[in-house]
Amino acid sequence: MDAQLNSLLKKIETTKSNLFQKDFLLTWEKTYGELETILAVAEALKYLRDNNISARCFDSGLAISQFRDNSTRTRFSFASAANLLGLAVQDLDEGKSQIAHGETVRETSAMISFLSDIIGIRDDMYLGAGNAYMREVGVALDEAFTDGVLPQRPGIVNLQCDIDHPTQSMADLLHLKTVLGSLENLKGKKIAMTWAYSPSYGKPLSVPQGIIGLMTRLGMHVDLAYPEGYGLIPEVVEIAGKQAKESGGSFRIVNSMNEAFDGAHIVYPKSWAPYHVMQRRTELLRKNDHEGLKVLEIECLGNNAKFKSWECTEDNMKLTNEGEALYMHCLPADISGVSCKEGEVNGPVFEKYRVPLYKQAGFKPYIIASMMLTNRFNNPAETLRKLFENKVKRVF
Amino acid sequence: MDAQLNSLLKKIETTKSNLFQKDFLLTWEKTYGELETILAVAEALKYLRDNNISARCFDSGLAISQFRDNSTRTRFSFASAANLLGLAVQDLDEGKSQIAHGETVRETSAMISFLSDIIGIRDDMYLGAGNAYMREVGVALDEAFTDGVLPQRPGIVNLQCDIDHPTQSMADLLHLKTVLGSLENLKGKKIAMTWAYSPSYGKPLSVPQGIIGLMTRLGMHVDLAYPEGYGLIPEVVEIAGKQAKESGGSFRIVNSMNEAFDGAHIVYPKSWAPYHVMQRRTELLRKNDHEGLKVLEIECLGNNAKFKSWECTEDNMKLTNEGEALYMHCLPADISGVSCKEGEVNGPVFEKYRVPLYKQAGFKPYIIASMMLTNRFNNPAETLRKLFENKVKRVF
Amino acid sequence: MDAQLNSLLKKIETTKSNLFQKDFLLTWEKTYGELETILAVAEALKYLRDNNISARCFDSGLAISQFRDNSTRTRFSFASAANLLGLAVQDLDEGKSQIAHGETVRETSAMISFLSDIIGIRDDMYLGAGNAYMREVGVALDEAFTDGVLPQRPGIVNLQCDIDHPTQSMADLLHLKTVLGSLENLKGKKIAMTWAYSPSYGKPLSVPQGIIGLMTRLGMHVDLAYPEGYGLIPEVVEIAGKQAKESGGSFRIVNSMNEAFDGAHIVYPKSWAPYHVMQRRTELLRKNDHEGLKVLEIECLGNNAKFKSWECTEDNMKLTNEGEALYMHCLPADISGVSCKEGEVNGPVFEKYRVPLYKQAGFKPYIIASMMLTNRFNNPAETLRKLFENKVKRVF
Repeated sequence: MDAQLNSLLKKIETTKSNLFQKDFLLTWEKTYGELETILAVAEALKYLRDNNISARCFDSGLAISQFRDNSTRTRFSFASAANLLGLAVQDLDEGKSQIAHGETVRETSAMISFLSDIIGIRDDMYLGAGNAYMREVGVALDEAFTDGVLPQRPGIVNLQCDIDHPTQSMADLLHLKTVLGSLENLKGKKIAMTWAYSPSYGKPLSVPQGIIGLMTRLGMHVDLAYPEGYGLIPEVVEIAGKQAKESGGSFRIVNSMNEAFDGAHIVYPKSWAPYHVMQRRTELLRKNDHEGLKVLEIECLGNNAKFKSWECTEDNMKLTNEGEALYMHCLPADISGVSCKEGEVNGPVFEKYRVPLYKQAGFKPYIIASMMLTNRFNNPAETLRKLFENKVKRVF
Repeated sequence: MDAQLNSLLKKIETTKSNLFQKDFLLTWEKTYGELETILAVAEALKYLRDNNISARCFDSGLAISQFRDNSTRTRFSFASAANLLGLAVQDLDEGKSQIAHGETVRETSAMISFLSDIIGIRDDMYLGAGNAYMREVGVALDEAFTDGVLPQRPGIVNLQCDIDHPTQSMADLLHLKTVLGSLENLKGKKIAMTWAYSPSYGKPLSVPQGIIGLMTRLGMHVDLAYPEGYGLIPEVVEIAGKQAKESGGSFRIVNSMNEAFDGAHIVYPKSWAPYHVMQRRTELLRKNDHEGLKVLEIECLGNNAKFKSWECTEDNMKLTNEGEALYMHCLPADISGVSCKEGEVNGPVFEKYRVPLYKQAGFKPYIIASMMLTNRFNNPAETLRKLFENKVKRVF
Repeated sequence: MDAQLNSLLKKIETTKSNLFQKDFLLTWEKTYGELETILAVAEALKYLRDNNISARCFDSGLAISQFRDNSTRTRFSFASAANLLGLAVQDLDEGKSQIAHGETVRETSAMISFLSDIIGIRDDMYLGAGNAYMREVGVALDEAFTDGVLPQRPGIVNLQCDIDHPTQSMADLLHLKTVLGSLENLKGKKIAMTWAYSPSYGKPLSVPQGIIGLMTRLGMHVDLAYPEGYGLIPEVVEIAGKQAKESGGSFRIVNSMNEAFDGAHIVYPKSWAPYHVMQRRTELLRKNDHEGLKVLEIECLGNNAKFKSWECTEDNMKLTNEGEALYMHCLPADISGVSCKEGEVNGPVFEKYRVPLYKQAGFKPYIIASMMLTNRFNNPAETLRKLFENKVKRVF
């Protein structure tokens, strides 16, 4: 067997983890070993794909997707992951369903799950609701399985909620691992997760929260930077602080992009709406208050506009470590002069890092497939080894 | 071979049936033996799935779905069934097609069928139209096959029409068979198919018609109950009467929920719109008469409201056999205090029967898969035996 | 091995072609041998399907479809082709994506392609834009592959653009080859590609352009007929003329349906909008000028109405070779008295040719599958031979 795959399988076998039949909802609910396992399984799946070896461990089966918000990257990553393992995607489109009839979450959850192996959910519009919805689905599935309604308990993968975006942050981490050579190499490195200006408002908090919630696990120095008033959910910030201490890194909040950039090895400038705005927006959305939403939008855009200087440029990139920090983004970015007049990053910086950014995004299908596989197979190393030994060609 | 599967396969082999290449449109067009075969094949498929044995009898192929009305349960059941057998689902979304251009049913039917094995259709909005549409598609497919346009003649599965809902009623029957141990045990049992109050109008007649059209085949005592004026399609009622006589059961119409519940072993309280209302609604829909539809809705809701007492409650359940009749519903139900203020069933009764109700729904994927398999394979027992003997694992 | 398949495989092996990893965008960019190869591979795939031999050369993989305009035939053909080869279809629905956020084509193209093998695109609404868009996607994919972003460079299949409709014209050609026995038999035959009246406006130019761009390759006498003012894109007309000369056929433009029909062996009467109208329409669409579009529509329908005599009827069919020319259409046709009051063809003529028309349409899935297969496999004859020798049954 190839040395690279062998070492990954050994890593998986020797790392304690308890991912089997556990939903993947928040990275900070997983042990460090479990996160390592997700990464290693993802890498092994990528190895199989790159070597034209089929990773189909399902002869048939369904992966349900439920997108309560638009998606390109995650939608295609989910479809790719399902297909890689042999599952067919069935989309739950609430507009074409009977859910509007007042059907309970408990019922819908059971009804879509009779022959389903995985359910992927994106629900990021309402603060306090997305993650809660996933847990409600999870409880319903537990119940239905216990009651003998379901022959299996499908696993849930969080495809972005109001709190975390774990398939994004884990893909980001795999990118960092690949660029730096190992997770160990991340120790002591500085990452700047900073707010950036965007001519839109209401962007979810899940990416910055996902990043500070994950990167503080790795002994990194994590700077969270935003203009005053643009804070994140307090509980997540607290968790980040605690984790930084435990991992031997640090975590602080600053109100200056430049301060965060200073000496950073990695920068992640990205717009988001302030926590308190998302709270107001959630209330207005719930009330269907279109007038109120318009007023809030104007107010917020006006407020955003005060911070147009929060743009990632060649100038502030010079402040970073050797002027060569790795620039990251979950994409699509608001690129000044390309997708908008003034935005999160200027054209030349984006263009300089475009290829690594695209590679970063390319890890997501494998991360999702890894979350699927570890949820369904108790001994992922064995499953992967069998796939390797069977040597069924993906392309004939 | 396992005794359970063996006995199912023997049953299938020794039961005379002629399901091969015949559409499944109305249960009363099928012989008793054919209905038994559908159930046994469904059970055998469930056995394979439960024992992690692949039921893929198609290496590739398409199952086309056409939903002219919303659907969650049936949509996912259809997708599950197709996937179980190895078919990929391709949805015919009329909004994204060229059908609006005035294309004939004959043409569309051929165009979507070149490499298709199964077509599932839901068309329940227009009285006199849904089933007729399916037959029009069927004739077009016959013609196209005879003319050498199609290399195969895809089978049609009725996923609910204006007359019958056979995947529902057959799943309901499989549920009853499972709960009571055998079809024979249904003989002499009383089932109450009764109207129930709902704060909505225009619900299709297909479920009550499907139930009286099927359960009268089994020697049961079938009571159809509704408030005066809420009758079903007369032809279906006539068929039910005839069948009850032939099967040694009985069929009567009563105008009291309590009378129907009295001594019943099974109750199926469910709202529907009166036949004559559906006729008027069909005309208005055809004319796109929004004003007329609004007027009709107000009139009907007002009329419905006179019958709020038609609710399944702990009180009237006491009237049933030992106060313990099996409560059934096609779901989603209008649950008083849960999905609406006042509805078809009160919260405690629904909750008491929630688990069996969900199990009832869980048979639908297998019923649909059985209809697909018996349509495409001349000797379903042999096909199932080969699948068993091949022992390809569904999950690696 | 069966003689028919063997002769097809020999044809493929001995014909020089360079289709591997080349997008299929315009037929006139392909050599004659390449067009022959596409036809022969399509026929071989049809042979396998007709003999219940699996043509799955992919164990897993994705075929992305992007329909920027409605489609039934091509959508189902694409899905059928993908499924035939073992690929799952994933639709890029721009409404459900983040593309509206100003994401670049370069980025979207990479994001949907990480695990994708084929991308099929329909983009025929904007003159000067559809084919250009496909090329922009192609350049982005090249770049992403070169940069190591993508593990493979997915192939692009043009599912209709503003210039050509190659899956249509190639299916049409396979139909002609089948009806006449060989491509050689097309030499010296006359085909009339003529405009016909339709009570709608704004129909794309891609079909007539595709037909004159392909049929002039075969030594045919191609008459393009339209009322004055209904010209096609000048560059395509020029190419047709050049090709006719090279192939030993002829090409001319006439302003009379009868003149084109005179002695024709094949007639293709079909409506389209004049080139200059499509240019104005494109500008108005771009400006979202609904008022201007309405004015243009009224003007065009009025202009169309002057040419109601451009209808294919039993009378003008008598002018064709022995009064028995093969009538062709890409479907759906505007049939007088069936799908509209007055249209492209009258009822009796359409009905007489309905079966061959449907057969014509039935070649499209195989043509698309052939374009997919030749794009992904360097030695298609070897791939097809292995599929034949493996003899995996498509239906168990």
